[in-house]
Amino acid sequence: MHQSILKALVEIAGEGNVSQSEADREQHSRDQSAHAAHLPEVVVWPGSTEEVSRILQLAYEYKIPVTGWGAGSSLEGNPIPVHGGIVLDFRRMNRILAVHEADFQVTVEAGVLYKDMNRYLSRFGLFFAPDPGANASIGGMIANNAAGIRTVKYGATRDNVLALTVVLANGRILRTGSRSVKQSSGYDLTHLFTGSEGTLGLITEATLKLAPIPTHISAATAVFPTVQKAAKAVFHLIGSGLQPSALELLDKSSIRILNTSTDLNLPEAPTLLMEFNSATTESLRTELALVEEICQGFECSNFQSGLGMKARNQLWTARHHLFEAMVRYFPGCTWLVTDVAVPISQYPELVAFAAELLPKLNLDGGLVGHAGDGNLHVTVFYPPDDQTAVTNAAYLNEQLVNKAIALDGTSTGEHGVGLGKKQFMVQEHGETAVTLMRQIKHLLDPHNILNPGKIF
Amino acid sequence: MHQSILKALVEIAGEGNVSQSEADREQHSRDQSAHAAHLPEVVVWPGSTEEVSRILQLAYEYKIPVTGWGAGSSLEGNPIPVHGGIVLDFRRMNRILAVHEADFQVTVEAGVLYKDMNRYLSRFGLFFAPDPGANASIGGMIANNAAGIRTVKYGATRDNVLALTVVLANGRILRTGSRSVKQSSGYDLTHLFTGSEGTLGLITEATLKLAPIPTHISAATAVFPTVQKAAKAVFHLIGSGLQPSALELLDKSSIRILNTSTDLNLPEAPTLLMEFNSATTESLRTELALVEEICQGFECSNFQSGLGMKARNQLWTARHHLFEAMVRYFPGCTWLVTDVAVPISQYPELVAFAAELLPKLNLDGGLVGHAGDGNLHVTVFYPPDDQTAVTNAAYLNEQLVNKAIALDGTSTGEHGVGLGKKQFMVQEHGETAVTLMRQIKHLLDPHNILNPGKIF
Repeated sequence: MHQSILKALVEIAGEGNVSQSEADREQHSRDQSAHAAHLPEVVVWPGSTEEVSRILQLAYEYKIPVTGWGAGSSLEGNPIPVHGGIVLDFRRMNRILAVHEADFQVTVEAGVLYKDMNRYLSRFGLFFAPDPGANASIGGMIANNAAGIRTVKYGATRDNVLALTVVLANGRILRTGSRSVKQSSGYDLTHLFTGSEGTLGLITEATLKLAPIPTHISAATAVFPTVQKAAKAVFHLIGSGLQPSALELLDKSSIRILNTSTDLNLPEAPTLLMEFNSATTESLRTELALVEEICQGFECSNFQSGLGMKARNQLWTARHHLFEAMVRYFPGCTWLVTDVAVPISQYPELVAFAAELLPKLNLDGGLVGHAGDGNLHVTVFYPPDDQTAVTNAAYLNEQLVNKAIALDGTSTGEHGVGLGKKQFMVQEHGETAVTLMRQIKHLLDPHNILNPGKIF
Repeated sequence: MHQSILKALVEIAGEGNVSQSEADREQHSRDQSAHAAHLPEVVVWPGSTEEVSRILQLAYEYKIPVTGWGAGSSLEGNPIPVHGGIVLDFRRMNRILAVHEADFQVTVEAGVLYKDMNRYLSRFGLFFAPDPGANASIGGMIANNAAGIRTVKYGATRDNVLALTVVLANGRILRTGSRSVKQSSGYDLTHLFTGSEGTLGLITEATLKLAPIPTHISAATAVFPTVQKAAKAVFHLIGSGLQPSALELLDKSSIRILNTSTDLNLPEAPTLLMEFNSATTESLRTELALVEEICQGFECSNFQSGLGMKARNQLWTARHHLFEAMVRYFPGCTWLVTDVAVPISQYPELVAFAAELLPKLNLDGGLVGHAGDGNLHVTVFYPPDDQTAVTNAAYLNEQLVNKAIALDGTSTGEHGVGLGKKQFMVQEHGETAVTLMRQIKHLLDPHNILNPGKIF
C-alpha cells in the first residue's frame, strides 16, 4: 500500500488508529472458522461515521478493498480480508447513543459488543434478544443477520432492526428506516443491508428493537434415547403452540463434552435444553406440565425442570461455552461447522440424516441445533493434515446442504454465506436470483471494494 | 394500443381474459382513495405465473406500462394506472397451493383474497394475522406491506412473508427466500419486493407465516375525556409490557358515526378498543385487571370488558366497517386519509397535534389510530368542489407528515407511498436514500414500465 494512502488514513483516523504491525494484521486475518487466514495490508480503527465515510472515499478512488471488522466471532470466514486491503475495525465506535426506554429501542454505534450492550440495558429492564452465543459486535450481527438460542421466540437480528446508518462504497452516508415500528415508505433498504455481510455498505449505527427482560422464567431438560426421537418431540412441542424462548438440541457427544467442562453432570444422551417465559408462575407450571407430557410421548427418560433465573443461567452459560469446550476437547484439530435450516416439519428428517451420515464418515464431533427454528449445526473436528477427514468434512457439509435445500430449507440459517456457502448460492436461489444479487452488488459497489470475495 | 399487442395478449391469457370495455377499464381506474382515476388501455386477467411472464416479456419489448391489480382496496392510489397501459388483475390467480399445516405456513397465488384465505385456513386452526380491514388480495398486501389492527402483536405483512415468486420487468421468473424461518443466505430479496408497490416486479405467489387461532380471547373498551388522555393510556399500556392483539383509538366523531351504523351504542367520547389473547382464562382476567387499572389512571370514565369470541367479533366487525360508515355519513363528499406513524412514546404528542389542528381547519372527519403501533389515521370528508376544504385537507396531510417525521416517524405506516406520499420521500429518507431507491428501480425496471408514476 502506497505511503500516501497510509498517510491519508492516519490523517483521517488519527496516529494510533492505523496499524501495519504483524500482530494487528494477524489478529484481523481470521475469524472463528477454519477458513484460511489472509492478512490485510493495514488495520484502521475509525472513530466516527464521518471517518468511515472519508476512508471509503479514499478507498473508492484508489480501488482498495475494505472489509469491516466487529469482534471476529463469525463462523463462515465472513470478515477474512481475502483480497487484502484495509480492515476497518469498529471497536472504537462502541457508544450507546440513545436508549429510547419508553419505546423499547436503543441506538448504538456498530462496534458495541452484544453482551456489553445488554449489560448496560439491563438497568432499564430491557435486552436485545437475538443471542449469537459469542460476544459479537452489533454491526457484525446485523451484517450477518445473526441469530441464536432466543430466535425461536424473538426472531433473528433482521426482525429486530429498525433503522441503520450505512456508509456506501463511494463514501456517501445513507440513513435507512425510522424509529416507527410500522414503515411502508419506499423500498426496504434496512433489510437490504441486513445480512449483506459488508458487501453493499458498512453499517456504522443502528436502532434496534428491545424486549423487556422476562420475570417469570423456567428451564427444562429432557433426555431421549435417540436424536431422532428428540427431534420429533421438538416438532410436536412447536406444533402444540407452545412458545419456548429457547429450544436447543444436543446429541450424546455434545453432552459428553459439555460435562467435561462444566459441573452440570447431564445424562450422556440426546437432550433438549428449553426455556419458557410466561406472565405468571402458574402459567409456567401449566406449560411445563404440557412440555413434559409431550416429551414423554417420545420416550423421554429423564425430564427435569426448574423455575427461576439461576437454573436458566447455568444451562445457557454451559451451552454458550460448548463450542470452546469442543475446541479444547479436540486439541490440535481444525473444524467445520455446518449451519443448515429447514421448516420445523422437516427437522426430524434432517436430524436423522445427519445422525446416520456422521458415523459413516468416521468424523468426530456432534450435532447441536437451535431446534425450535429448524436450524442444525453439525460440528466436526479433525487434524488439519488428515486429507481423508478434510474430504469427508467437505462431503458432510455438501450432503447436509443438499438435504436442507431438498427439504425447502437453506444452506445457512444464521452464519451467512461468507466463504463457505458461496458454492451453493445458485443451487439454493436459482440463476435469476443470484444474477439479481450480483447486479445489486455491482450497483452499490461498482469497483468491488467492499468485502470482495464473499457471497459470490 | 396496437391490435397486434391485443392479439398477443389474447393468445397468452385466453379469449375472455382480455378486455377493453369501458366498464372493465373504469373498474380498474381507481382505488379506495380520492386520487384521480385514470383508465388503463386494457385489462388482462392472467391465469398463471407463466402467463404473467409472457405478458411482461411483451410489455418489456414494446415499453408498455403494466400495473398489478389485487382487490383495488388500497388507500393511496397505489394501483391507479396513471400512465395507462395494461392492468394485470390477479383475480383468477387465487389458488391456495399448499397448506403447510405443521409449519404454520401457507403457499398461495397472489390474487387470493385475505378473508377468503383465512376462512379456508380456519379449518386448520390457523390464520394470517396482518388484518388490513378490507378484503385485500395477498399480492396487494405484500406489495404495499399492508398492516392493520393485529400488527401490534403479529407484525405487518413484511414480518410474515417467507418466500415469493416474482415476475421481473423483462419477464424473468424470480424465486426468493425459502420455507425456513431462519435465512441468512445472500441478499434479502423477499423484503426488497415487499412494500415495493409493484414497481420492481409483480408478485405472483407467496409463502406466508401463519399463527394459531387463539382460544382465550377478551375484548375491552375504555372511554376517556380526551384523545390526549386516551393516547397517554396507550403509551402506558404498551410500556407496561402487556401484549394486546389489538389496540385501537377512535375519537368522538368516529364513535358517533360508528353508532349510526351499528347497534354497539358506545358512549360518544374518545375510546380505546382492545383485544387480548392469553394462554388461560385466568391470565386473561389478570391482564384485564391491569388494563383497567392503567386506564383509570388517565380518567377513564367507562371500562367494559368481556371474554369470548362474540364480544370480540362484534367490536371488530364494527371497526372494520367504520370507513364505509364514514363514507355513507358524508354523502357526496370526497375524502383524504392520512397514515402517519411514530414511536409509541411520541404518540400522545402526535394525537394532541392532530386533535388541535383538525377543528382549526374546519374539516369534518375523525381520528382513528392503530394506537398500539403508533399509527394514526385522520380521515376528513369534504365536497370535491370546495376549494378551501381541498386546500385545508392537503395542508392537514402535510402538517401531520411534517410532525410525524419530526417525531422520528414516517409519512406512511401501512398505506404505502402510492401517489399521495411521493412529495415527502426526500424529506423522510434524505437525498442519498431516495437516489439509491431510484437506482434500484432503474436496475430492475430500466424502461419504467412497472406501475410507473408511483413512489418517485
